[in-house]
Amino acid sequence: MSETRGDYSYLLEIPTRWNDKDMLGHVNNVFYYSYFEAIITKFVQEELKCNWAKSDIIPYAAENLCRFKKPLRFPEVIEGAMRISQIGRTSFVYELAIFSKGQDRPAATGYWVHVMVNRESERPIELTKGMRGILAKFLVT
Amino acid sequence: MSETRGDYSYLLEIPTRWNDKDMLGHVNNVFYYSYFEAIITKFVQEELKCNWAKSDIIPYAAENLCRFKKPLRFPEVIEGAMRISQIGRTSFVYELAIFSKGQDRPAATGYWVHVMVNRESERPIELTKGMRGILAKFLVT
Amino acid sequence: MSETRGDYSYLLEIPTRWNDKDMLGHVNNVFYYSYFEAIITKFVQEELKCNWAKSDIIPYAAENLCRFKKPLRFPEVIEGAMRISQIGRTSFVYELAIFSKGQDRPAATGYWVHVMVNRESERPIELTKGMRGILAKFLVT
Amino acid sequence: MSETRGDYSYLLEIPTRWNDKDMLGHVNNVFYYSYFEAIITKFVQEELKCNWAKSDIIPYAAENLCRFKKPLRFPEVIEGAMRISQIGRTSFVYELAIFSKGQDRPAATGYWVHVMVNRESERPIELTKGMRGILAKFLVT
Repeated sequence: MSETRGDYSYLLEIPTRWNDKDMLGHVNNVFYYSYFEAIITKFVQEELKCNWAKSDIIPYAAENLCRFKKPLRFPEVIEGAMRISQIGRTSFVYELAIFSKGQDRPAATGYWVHVMVNRESERPIELTKGMRGILAKFLVT
Repeated sequence: MSETRGDYSYLLEIPTRWNDKDMLGHVNNVFYYSYFEAIITKFVQEELKCNWAKSDIIPYAAENLCRFKKPLRFPEVIEGAMRISQIGRTSFVYELAIFSKGQDRPAATGYWVHVMVNRESERPIELTKGMRGILAKFLVT
Repeated sequence: MSETRGDYSYLLEIPTRWNDKDMLGHVNNVFYYSYFEAIITKFVQEELKCNWAKSDIIPYAAENLCRFKKPLRFPEVIEGAMRISQIGRTSFVYELAIFSKGQDRPAATGYWVHVMVNRESERPIELTKGMRGILAKFLVT
Repeated sequence: MSETRGDYSYLLEIPTRWNDKDMLGHVNNVFYYSYFEAIITKFVQEELKCNWAKSDIIPYAAENLCRFKKPLRFPEVIEGAMRISQIGRTSFVYELAIFSKGQDRPAATGYWVHVMVNRESERPIELTKGMRGILAKFLVT
């Protein structure tokens, strides 16, 4: 499936920080997940209308992955990109990519699986119809 | 000395990240320094034209401080502010502030002392005339 | 006041992590505060018996400072050190130091002011007699 | 393949830090990779004798993954575990696991692919015979 910048339905500019970078002058591998997380927590709050401090239903990460294609060297700003690739009964999958600004080919790609759980019981819970509708708008075609 | 938003000569919007926040839903105290650092490393690169990977003269932190005035709760974006308060022979001092977006009173204030050193010897080195000129433009009056 | 290793009453070994280090191969300045925080949150939990998730009285940081005396270069393990320097009505002050392992002179020193607050109101609250007793045991003499 | 604690050939205790934890009181998902990285950078330095600042051959991350099996709640210390699962021509794969201290079933499992590259050219380079010998000692059987 194509992974150029235009293939993603949700984009976010992310300024890097000095301490994102490692001893080799590259963005440290761990911080790619911090960028992924910045994208999806924004999506969860603003699109899925989930309030981390109060909502009864919140997402837990079940699995995530990142493929590092080329080092990000001293970037000022990177661009995060997301699309939904699967919608299950209690979970869904984000496909994610990181671009150097203005680039069309990703520096990294990956995915992140969110399971919706009840805050108290921590047991998986079915996606609501409302959530499915929102997720469908960002579903890769 | 006044610490309202308009009293600072260098401003930077900083999106917060999910993992900037602590167990109490506040921005973790340590991350205020990460925001301070984001402001001053940008200033050092873009205004003082210092290249961290190559320049012979680079700044080392000598001392910094932060006063936490009110908690930052689940902010999406904060605003960092800076002005120069002292220019010494080999060092200078940034005054820093963090604002909730759109607020006039700071959530936190502080300072950061940079000493210019030779990359190899790590010994302090006099500020160049060019640097003094740039710093003077941001000096608090 | 003396700042050699033996002058501190509370010590903690802290393994560094790869991403504590910056582009110059030094421990990034921001992470010194992360080490300070590791020391004092351990103290608060284990000595003051404060439960961050449940206690009615919790500490908020009011101010902190760090003086960077010599760079920490690729350390495997550093040693954090603490002593109490002031006990006020609602607040108290930790004096902190970071040592390269086995060294007697600190790589950095600093302080951290904690104010005890009520979790709900976030208003300062008097230190209990029990807390004063514990703090006194670590007070610098 | 079995994933109990005894099935891993390389173990490392990792103290958690206050800011590893998120708003829900769990270890933040991103920090699992920081723990993975702590394990493998230690292995690379101490076993493979690679010096990040100087060696001509250094490892680059090509891909990594984490499966989150149960939340880590306010842990003081976690235990990281590693074994080698594949040795290729220019790359090899670590299998990783995170345990709550004293537990036999992992809180999370994952993998990390390292490609050996030439520091200057950043091109993949064949594993030396010496490296193969060391990796083989930690290979899962």
